[in-house]
Amino acid sequence: MDNHEHLLIRAAFKKPVERTPVWVMRQAGRYLSEYRAVREQAGDFLSLCMNPELAAEVSIQPLELMEVDAVIMFSDILTPLMGMGMELSFDPSPKFLNPIKSERDIEALKLVDPDVSTPYVGKILNIIRKEINNKVPVIGFAGGPFTLASYLVEGEGSKLFSKFIKMLFDSPQAAHALMSKLTQMTIQYLNYQIENGAQMVQLFDTWAGILPIDDYMEFVFPYVSQIFSELDKKSEVPSVYYINGGHQLLKAMSKTGATVVGLDWRYDIGIANQLIGKDVALQGNLNPNILFCRPEIIKKKTAEILSKMKGENGHIFNLGHGIDKNVNPEHLKCMIKAVKELSKR
Amino acid sequence: MDNHEHLLIRAAFKKPVERTPVWVMRQAGRYLSEYRAVREQAGDFLSLCMNPELAAEVSIQPLELMEVDAVIMFSDILTPLMGMGMELSFDPSPKFLNPIKSERDIEALKLVDPDVSTPYVGKILNIIRKEINNKVPVIGFAGGPFTLASYLVEGEGSKLFSKFIKMLFDSPQAAHALMSKLTQMTIQYLNYQIENGAQMVQLFDTWAGILPIDDYMEFVFPYVSQIFSELDKKSEVPSVYYINGGHQLLKAMSKTGATVVGLDWRYDIGIANQLIGKDVALQGNLNPNILFCRPEIIKKKTAEILSKMKGENGHIFNLGHGIDKNVNPEHLKCMIKAVKELSKR
Repeated sequence: MDNHEHLLIRAAFKKPVERTPVWVMRQAGRYLSEYRAVREQAGDFLSLCMNPELAAEVSIQPLELMEVDAVIMFSDILTPLMGMGMELSFDPSPKFLNPIKSERDIEALKLVDPDVSTPYVGKILNIIRKEINNKVPVIGFAGGPFTLASYLVEGEGSKLFSKFIKMLFDSPQAAHALMSKLTQMTIQYLNYQIENGAQMVQLFDTWAGILPIDDYMEFVFPYVSQIFSELDKKSEVPSVYYINGGHQLLKAMSKTGATVVGLDWRYDIGIANQLIGKDVALQGNLNPNILFCRPEIIKKKTAEILSKMKGENGHIFNLGHGIDKNVNPEHLKCMIKAVKELSKR
Repeated sequence: MDNHEHLLIRAAFKKPVERTPVWVMRQAGRYLSEYRAVREQAGDFLSLCMNPELAAEVSIQPLELMEVDAVIMFSDILTPLMGMGMELSFDPSPKFLNPIKSERDIEALKLVDPDVSTPYVGKILNIIRKEINNKVPVIGFAGGPFTLASYLVEGEGSKLFSKFIKMLFDSPQAAHALMSKLTQMTIQYLNYQIENGAQMVQLFDTWAGILPIDDYMEFVFPYVSQIFSELDKKSEVPSVYYINGGHQLLKAMSKTGATVVGLDWRYDIGIANQLIGKDVALQGNLNPNILFCRPEIIKKKTAEILSKMKGENGHIFNLGHGIDKNVNPEHLKCMIKAVKELSKR
């Protein structure tokens, strides 16, 4: 089967579709009791990421339980950084025990063949591809270099990433060196995923939204553009670029070379479509908290987003951010059913 | 002295100024050892808020230490909610022991004369006015009703305010009743501050930025507009409307009736000025983390913001968010000095 026959892939390339495809960020996750059972079996989060059989199993769960139009491999954006020499732990938030403090630390970051540093990721993808037998496409992913660098310099999640912002402006040479190294790693890592069967790839640049446009253009845009330009099989394997809270960066996002721009829930997708819809497809963007509301409300808000897209091609339905662990799975089913019914052409 | 003679007030009303005025959100705060000493004397944060002499003292500290162009009264956006019957504690983050769960809880919220519910606020303002003898204007403030409602329903700070979002859509009548009651309280509270000497007032709607524009127009805009329309002495006492992360709401913010729109650091202030600068003055918007950088960088980034405003009237310099407790006070001085030197007309 040609990748272009998949509904998701056609939507990503803005080709005609019979209805809008739908998947959900963090769809393989804690809101599912089936996921929690497997995670318990694996031991902890990181062990689950590194166990190809179990990671493939939780990746596939939402396909069966939720009838989504894509399977995203179960992993974490920070795992490839272990291969660079970073010591990562989750308790439960991610922490690096050896955060980046100097140019020497940046030089010491290793670029290792992903087959050596993250062999489990290739295996996960191969198992999923074999198990689901092309019923839907498989999505690979990586963290955006700015988002990864934020974690590396802060050593953990942060609200404002003050240490990293300090590095950007006090030591721009170091910041560029770090971004450049992470960019090289990410290109290798995503191409390794494509080689191992990923049929679409998403770059999660979750934290880049803290930057105003000037700083984004200096420190992020060139690197992200390089990543998208150096991906393999660009005519077959579409790419998605997602930022959380990056409204000020919308036009720039559409110029990075990504096939699809992933919108958080704060955007009006109709306005975004007018602004950048000629250049890219759009993914999104229901407020993830709407899934806490009554089914009628979930259906109504889903309908609003679809109607803003006016049935145009080039839309992949998703939440505007990852699904929360406390969502009732029946509510997600309700959203998915609504997308399928209401978007029929 | 007429209020219009103050540099800050002239800038707010877009009148000619000899240079750009500057003050800083949370300028009376933990980054100052002088503040920490007084806070220790008061006992805890809430006791300091409710102690008129000490609260006035910390309010005035940045005028002497930093030579800012305005004094903002020391208080917290949540204190007036205690007068409505809410039990507030700080440990150190704010928590309500009796969060709003039902329409009955909303009905039970009391509207009390601010002179009875928050007498210390009027006293703080009167002491500051007397002490500083109109050297600079005094700024009063309140929380935006959406931001207050978020805290009341969640019971504490939150990233996504899922309980409150659920209320908005599952029980819109309750949400509107809550917004309406908080709006009435806020109008009384701000007019009480104006009566007691506040020469500018700021509405901190910090959390409204989580909403897309449609939801903002339904649940926030009418209430905020009502507040600004019912303020006393509108021709003398300007008002500022601040949202954190509300890029998608910029045009709406400029239509609320506020004299000044407060921008977070993610906006390009030059672009914002083109979009809304005819209708309102702008306040902002240096990235607060720039204060962690070297003095040359602080000066350079300050100059960039001033140059984006091209020396036009209608600009109040500020950070794009509150100053962090770990900032070196010398770095803030450097920013203030740069604003004063570089903005001379």
